[in-house]
Amino acid sequence: MLTNLPRLREIMRQEKLDAIIGTCAENVTYLSGFWAMSQWVRRGPQAYVLHTADGGSGAVIANSGVVDLIADQEIWVEDVRRYGFFQVDVDKTAKLSAEDVRQSRLFEKPAYKGPVEALCAALQDRGLAKGRIGVDEQGMTPQCWDQLAAALPEVKLVRAFSLIEKVRAIKMPEEIARLTEAARISCLSVDAALAAARPGITEQEMLRVFNRTTVENDGTPVTNCIGFGDRSAMSNVQPSATRALKRGDVIRFDVGCRYRHYRSDISRIGVLGEPPSKVVKYYKALEKGVLRGYEIIKPGLKVSDLFDQVVETVRKEGIPHYQRSHVGHGIGVDGYDPPNIGPGGDAILEENMVICVETPYYELGFAGLQVEDMIHVTGSGAKSLMRFDTALRVIG
Amino acid sequence: MLTNLPRLREIMRQEKLDAIIGTCAENVTYLSGFWAMSQWVRRGPQAYVLHTADGGSGAVIANSGVVDLIADQEIWVEDVRRYGFFQVDVDKTAKLSAEDVRQSRLFEKPAYKGPVEALCAALQDRGLAKGRIGVDEQGMTPQCWDQLAAALPEVKLVRAFSLIEKVRAIKMPEEIARLTEAARISCLSVDAALAAARPGITEQEMLRVFNRTTVENDGTPVTNCIGFGDRSAMSNVQPSATRALKRGDVIRFDVGCRYRHYRSDISRIGVLGEPPSKVVKYYKALEKGVLRGYEIIKPGLKVSDLFDQVVETVRKEGIPHYQRSHVGHGIGVDGYDPPNIGPGGDAILEENMVICVETPYYELGFAGLQVEDMIHVTGSGAKSLMRFDTALRVIG
Repeated sequence: MLTNLPRLREIMRQEKLDAIIGTCAENVTYLSGFWAMSQWVRRGPQAYVLHTADGGSGAVIANSGVVDLIADQEIWVEDVRRYGFFQVDVDKTAKLSAEDVRQSRLFEKPAYKGPVEALCAALQDRGLAKGRIGVDEQGMTPQCWDQLAAALPEVKLVRAFSLIEKVRAIKMPEEIARLTEAARISCLSVDAALAAARPGITEQEMLRVFNRTTVENDGTPVTNCIGFGDRSAMSNVQPSATRALKRGDVIRFDVGCRYRHYRSDISRIGVLGEPPSKVVKYYKALEKGVLRGYEIIKPGLKVSDLFDQVVETVRKEGIPHYQRSHVGHGIGVDGYDPPNIGPGGDAILEENMVICVETPYYELGFAGLQVEDMIHVTGSGAKSLMRFDTALRVIG
Repeated sequence: MLTNLPRLREIMRQEKLDAIIGTCAENVTYLSGFWAMSQWVRRGPQAYVLHTADGGSGAVIANSGVVDLIADQEIWVEDVRRYGFFQVDVDKTAKLSAEDVRQSRLFEKPAYKGPVEALCAALQDRGLAKGRIGVDEQGMTPQCWDQLAAALPEVKLVRAFSLIEKVRAIKMPEEIARLTEAARISCLSVDAALAAARPGITEQEMLRVFNRTTVENDGTPVTNCIGFGDRSAMSNVQPSATRALKRGDVIRFDVGCRYRHYRSDISRIGVLGEPPSKVVKYYKALEKGVLRGYEIIKPGLKVSDLFDQVVETVRKEGIPHYQRSHVGHGIGVDGYDPPNIGPGGDAILEENMVICVETPYYELGFAGLQVEDMIHVTGSGAKSLMRFDTALRVIG
């Protein structure tokens, strides 16, 4: 179970919502376990998950072409409604597997014309033809939104993407397990890439090593920022086929994958050969910033205090001009869950948040340096999800 | 250059639009060359590309945190406007690379407050504070849409995602080159996976081999449907860690990657050992359906005729009850570009479309069988982008 149902219901209560409907890929998976492939890889395919404030059973709305995934996945929402035509035949002479039995049962139910018709039926069956309903505005097309509003004139539709994000901020044990594995895979990939560091290897060749390790460990590559030397100063540097590694070059990794739909996002710095003294000094300051984060992270800490103390530490320890928009963010089924670790605001750290704490520094003409760790906020403080310490990695 | 600018302007003329604005990841890349990482991997980050009907210069709107990618990529829209705070320092003593010079120039220009402010300024500078403007509704958040409508009360905003899709249907040479390479990578990956077929290998283990080949050839895994035996009948089958290959099993691949942002989508069937006679018979019928497509594909063919003839061929050649919603689709920066090769409608094939032609057949309790080829529609007919023929792959 990925959904933090108590928190979801609490937020519905606070916001006076009778129901909440997830519509984007991340929220559909989060709210039901249903990974609806088409909406993950394209814009437009519609899949929805409905949960009600009364604690009754939720509903999943899916195109007939993806209900096989419902039959084959661990879904914790029982009322499944499909829409649209999709042909699946059945060998009547065969003994079907449990998955195929589930799929054929889903196909025995009639298909609705479209996703909104299916959603309206699920709402009406729950007495929700009026009331106040939160709808995730990031996955429902404007056309479907208009159709829903027209079909349910007595319902007040409220944009709810940010509310669902708020629910997602506090992780369930299964989410923490997946995030831990995603972090592990990316750590292994950094280790493998650094083991391949030698004069002449290109950024792209190093990326191949990195990604090979990721896929061999059942991760899917997502962000692949690997840059050498002055290219490391580009914040989103994408590996080039021509930039070859030289002695003294910084190697910056800001990388992450998906593992069972959950994200990793980590950063480490390597240097081939003797690191220049400015690299050593600046890296140490950035590292101490993150280590300061580890010291103070605990439930109840104001997020803006975390930001202030990390930035202040970096300034004091060697980069007096250090400026940042944020020094981290939550992570989960999305790469940026709440909280955003920035200045100001009232947000506090809560138990079972999983956060990235990072101190990137980009200086054109010099290098990009960065430490980024994934950290589980436990009752007793910060617990690292990393497989290695924060030290600068000096190679060869 | 990926954008089919003549066709874009022609469609603006037909639809009486003064300008068109791409907002989702695929359209931003397609309309400018700008791959804005954050909007590819998350929901919500805003990047826009504006083109005007008058043939004047377009504009790119980007968060300050991703303008490094503009500096490092081949972008063919010169007016770049950034929004939001992002800190990048510059070593004033260093000689900057060309990319860093471009980036620092982008940072010399002031940042707009948000994406809509930047977009409004770009529109106003082009005299477009009134008129009729097409906006891709798939990437702009509803909040930004509302803000744009309020800021430009004399502008009529028209949803334009499907219009941009229509432009994308006819490919430019660079697009065809990328699609050809994406298809090649997926063919190599199928070959590698089939070479690893042996009794006892699991679906997940075969996926690892498949994905390793994809990433070693600079592809990014996207859809990974690999299923053995009865699991192959699940249309979107995701590899399981427990299902091991047995003699006589069908191995169904419906797979694709991204290569430089462009998609592949192909399908092949292998069998370990002697294929059951029903597999041979049904596969032959499906294969003949696709081969019939090759025979008749040419510019001017009605898409519904292609559908009818492919389906009719499969029925006549061995699966009389064959039913399908479609037998293929365009492919490009999205896995499903127009045309949809389905029944009815007036669409015709045009030169430099790239299409997938496919004849999937799913029978629970038996197997899933499928042939799917990527085909370039040339002036002289179908040109396959595949690296192997359509034959059933019998292993061992």
